[in-house]
Amino acid sequence: MTEPKLQPGERIDELPSQKIRIIQNPDMFSYSLDAVLLAHFAGVKGKGRGLTVDLGAGTGAVGLFYAQKVLGPIKLVEIQADLAAMAKRSVALNDLTEQVEVIHSDMKTVFDQIRPGSAETVLSNPPYFPAVETTKQNLDEHYKIARHEVAIDLPELAQVANKLLKNNGKFYLVHRPDRLADIFAALEGRKLRIKRLQFVYGKAQREANMVLVEAIKAGRPGGVRILPPIVAYQEDNEYTPQVNEILYGEPWQA
Amino acid sequence: MTEPKLQPGERIDELPSQKIRIIQNPDMFSYSLDAVLLAHFAGVKGKGRGLTVDLGAGTGAVGLFYAQKVLGPIKLVEIQADLAAMAKRSVALNDLTEQVEVIHSDMKTVFDQIRPGSAETVLSNPPYFPAVETTKQNLDEHYKIARHEVAIDLPELAQVANKLLKNNGKFYLVHRPDRLADIFAALEGRKLRIKRLQFVYGKAQREANMVLVEAIKAGRPGGVRILPPIVAYQEDNEYTPQVNEILYGEPWQA
Repeated sequence: MTEPKLQPGERIDELPSQKIRIIQNPDMFSYSLDAVLLAHFAGVKGKGRGLTVDLGAGTGAVGLFYAQKVLGPIKLVEIQADLAAMAKRSVALNDLTEQVEVIHSDMKTVFDQIRPGSAETVLSNPPYFPAVETTKQNLDEHYKIARHEVAIDLPELAQVANKLLKNNGKFYLVHRPDRLADIFAALEGRKLRIKRLQFVYGKAQREANMVLVEAIKAGRPGGVRILPPIVAYQEDNEYTPQVNEILYGEPWQA
Repeated sequence: MTEPKLQPGERIDELPSQKIRIIQNPDMFSYSLDAVLLAHFAGVKGKGRGLTVDLGAGTGAVGLFYAQKVLGPIKLVEIQADLAAMAKRSVALNDLTEQVEVIHSDMKTVFDQIRPGSAETVLSNPPYFPAVETTKQNLDEHYKIARHEVAIDLPELAQVANKLLKNNGKFYLVHRPDRLADIFAALEGRKLRIKRLQFVYGKAQREANMVLVEAIKAGRPGGVRILPPIVAYQEDNEYTPQVNEILYGEPWQA
């Protein structure tokens, strides 16, 4: 691995189970457990030779973690130039330049660089909050675009994912459960049929704060499966064995 | 309590935590954990003086359990004459004739007996399976109507619930998670806004096999809350403390 020159404010975080290192800048945006769980949750077709696209890739965490599970090419699409540049350096840091490409683009206009109907898998850890909730006008611009539906909203995201996917291709999404009605409306309305959901609970007796979603393009309606609950923390605020295994255990198997 | 004369095949089951006794006939239909969890899950507005309607009441289990939580009248609507008659005898058995009324009617035409817009709360443990899956033509008729969408389907049920409810009234439903896309479409399509979901997992490492749903009529869209998971059984096949408490513990508080 090549040691990169870090910019002011940057640090390198590592996901121990995958030996993947991500350049982060907490002033701009950091990946979190959401990204790890999405990459872990996302399935692989066959040996994963098909094309994977990560929409709203940020610093590239989801796509770089997922790269450990598949053999095929991965394209990371990120609208913010600073984040796309960091993602590009993280790709090099992990010696993955042959497999992973960073595309600095608005995902809504990415079709001149990724052919419609060409993706086997689309991943996304999109902004969670409606743009109307953006009351903090002094919010850092990087965070605003990453967390609020300023550049892309859920129906638009579903539209882009649907257009990129082949028939029977899979769309994997991590989001907040309070948007579940919007998620069903946006995906099912575009015949992205929701097939698996997994809820993540901060603690066993708390409400879920995250949902992982698998949808299939042009699949048959109905038949949603709710996977066993993921509980992140024990009562003593340590990670549960379940999450500890994902973060620190064996490399993931698809 | 008056001891009733039982018909051939009938028995009396008791929910210990509520001291409620239900006349059952396993040849026709028996209530199960679904009914108990729905009645436990369903909230109460104020002291529960408003009208409650149980749609597809079967032998009356849900409504009779829920009667322990509220002061107001409860109307049990059941299309099958045999089951409605059993429910009526169970109401008498529990000395609840002043609070609970059984209406033998198709719910779609119940509006001559229950005024539209008059219900504070609607409960339903409806048929779970689409009618098209009714391949077993020799299935007992009572079970067929109770379990398959022969007499009522989900969009029709949502329509009836919506018409019965006041604005801001609540609809509580227990169903199977594989119908979740249908549930969102049927309810949200009628402005029954899904506000709380709770998933029930047979065991901690199994997929959910039941979902409890709370929707509010003409509520604001969005804001779904996913309550902590309910796990029914321990690894040794005993009920978990959580479910044991609901079945055998203190009387429920609304």
